[in-house]
Amino acid sequence: TGKKFLRYLFYVSRPIFAGTCCGQRALYEVGLTGIPIFNVNNACASGSSGLFLGKQIIESGNADVILCAGFEKMAAGSLEKLASPIDDRSKREHYAKIAYKNHLHSVHNPKSQFTKEFSLDQVINARKIYDFMGLLECSPTSDGAAAAVIVSERFLEKNPRLKSQAVEIIGLKLGTDMPSVFQEKSNIKMIGFDMIDKISKELYAETKITPNDVQVIELHDCFAPNELITYEAIGLCPVGKGHTIVDKNDNTYGGKWVINPSGGLISKGHPIGATGVAQAVELSNQLRGRCGKRQVPNCKIAMQHNIGIGGAGVVGLYRLGFPQHAQSKL
Amino acid sequence: TGKKFLRYLFYVSRPIFAGTCCGQRALYEVGLTGIPIFNVNNACASGSSGLFLGKQIIESGNADVILCAGFEKMAAGSLEKLASPIDDRSKREHYAKIAYKNHLHSVHNPKSQFTKEFSLDQVINARKIYDFMGLLECSPTSDGAAAAVIVSERFLEKNPRLKSQAVEIIGLKLGTDMPSVFQEKSNIKMIGFDMIDKISKELYAETKITPNDVQVIELHDCFAPNELITYEAIGLCPVGKGHTIVDKNDNTYGGKWVINPSGGLISKGHPIGATGVAQAVELSNQLRGRCGKRQVPNCKIAMQHNIGIGGAGVVGLYRLGFPQHAQSKL
Repeated sequence: TGKKFLRYLFYVSRPIFAGTCCGQRALYEVGLTGIPIFNVNNACASGSSGLFLGKQIIESGNADVILCAGFEKMAAGSLEKLASPIDDRSKREHYAKIAYKNHLHSVHNPKSQFTKEFSLDQVINARKIYDFMGLLECSPTSDGAAAAVIVSERFLEKNPRLKSQAVEIIGLKLGTDMPSVFQEKSNIKMIGFDMIDKISKELYAETKITPNDVQVIELHDCFAPNELITYEAIGLCPVGKGHTIVDKNDNTYGGKWVINPSGGLISKGHPIGATGVAQAVELSNQLRGRCGKRQVPNCKIAMQHNIGIGGAGVVGLYRLGFPQHAQSKL
Repeated sequence: TGKKFLRYLFYVSRPIFAGTCCGQRALYEVGLTGIPIFNVNNACASGSSGLFLGKQIIESGNADVILCAGFEKMAAGSLEKLASPIDDRSKREHYAKIAYKNHLHSVHNPKSQFTKEFSLDQVINARKIYDFMGLLECSPTSDGAAAAVIVSERFLEKNPRLKSQAVEIIGLKLGTDMPSVFQEKSNIKMIGFDMIDKISKELYAETKITPNDVQVIELHDCFAPNELITYEAIGLCPVGKGHTIVDKNDNTYGGKWVINPSGGLISKGHPIGATGVAQAVELSNQLRGRCGKRQVPNCKIAMQHNIGIGGAGVVGLYRLGFPQHAQSKL
């Protein structure tokens, strides 16, 4: 079209006490001067909020390449006060098993903050952080960074060698809190159950894809109970039945889905501004078949769930854009 | 098209020490729950960065109505350290005259933080804040808020009664710092001269509009010298000739342009997150002929200039979208 290929940079800042232009600060030093940069801040969903806005700009036709970057340098203990017990529908062991599973997954992720297997006993008996929740069931204090490049289809047509690794965003929905957060005295509502329930239903309706079509999920397990609740919010099972996914091992290799193959926030780490971007990176590499020992077999459709309290929630679906090109590379 | 009219909310947060989701905090309370909200942060250009991103989303076709809101509650003295002398091309009086002019303009803006006329002597002899710059030549500590609604053309076709007040964004460019900011020991470069020069030239080339077509300008006069330098950066005159605009009174009623009819940041105030949005509001009302005693006559094309150190710069051009509808209402 004769339009210049513009580059926009979304920098996703650390959510608390961030310098106003820390995105510019980070990117100028690698030579990325003179191009539009935005600092987007939506708490722990900042990373996926940046992906969401980048997608809008690509779809506007005003840019063909966007770098979406996030990073975080956290202070110790910054998440501690957010932990809270959830409900009594599930047993203590269900939460521990989720944390056990995520730590186990991370053994094969060399980029994980921890890569150590812990026994279920170790998880259950770890130092308590809040109520029943122990140290190994909570995302740790993390420093880290992640980056993803979003491009237009036009860009791929002009750079066909990139098609083999191109991942398509099938759909990406963002919501914020519903009135129930304020009206009901419910921790489950407080952490965004209703907004995630709403946008994931919208996502499935718009894309004609259901959780049954999905093989791999990166899910915002800031605390083990969040993962269990989210099984219900994203419709993997009926409300109140999240624990049945744990009982059937439908959240790990050999089960219906592999959830948090990266180790999740609990073991891979939760560098807040980076988390939503890092989820997209893990899912992209799973779809590309690049994940080595933690590769999810027959991985065709991937799902992302990222949430920030206060708040914003994002649910997305991904697949290879040109599977025929990917095949020919194998 | 059967597409639902979505609403996106950009909240433009206060740039320093802002709570991560203060946009949600502000908007939930007026009932705006459950819809996408983003907190965008680009220092003093946060407001126009929000407008810029809102425009991208409208152009993506994914939304038809966007509320772009900004606010600020400042701590006293937060800008003081940013003041610095600029160059020696202009005389002391040129800066003072700019401040005198902006304070004079604000007399007719009931929404201005100050609405008082000061004499040139008062400006020159005011308490010094930094080097030669006195209190009346610096934007004050300000609390404030502003909001603008951005809609698609499709929305206007479905709501034709709104056409009479619809303002078209002819063009809106955003840039960040060029390497010269780091390579040259120049205060003029540091405050973004080169990025503003670059994007305004691009804007004029793309829109086929030049400063000669413009009648009214809201310009980021955080300090009086910034206004003078920006006359050159946005191409109102050759580089080094900013003071000639002052000498010819081409920056006020009766001259070639009216610059900062609102009173500008110096008198209207500079509530950081709100500033870029407030500029768009003033320009829209000027184009609509709603500005009473401060109305710029024959106002057809309006220009915005907003800058954040660290940094980002925005230059935009506006006009009535449907001048024939506006005429018929008079």
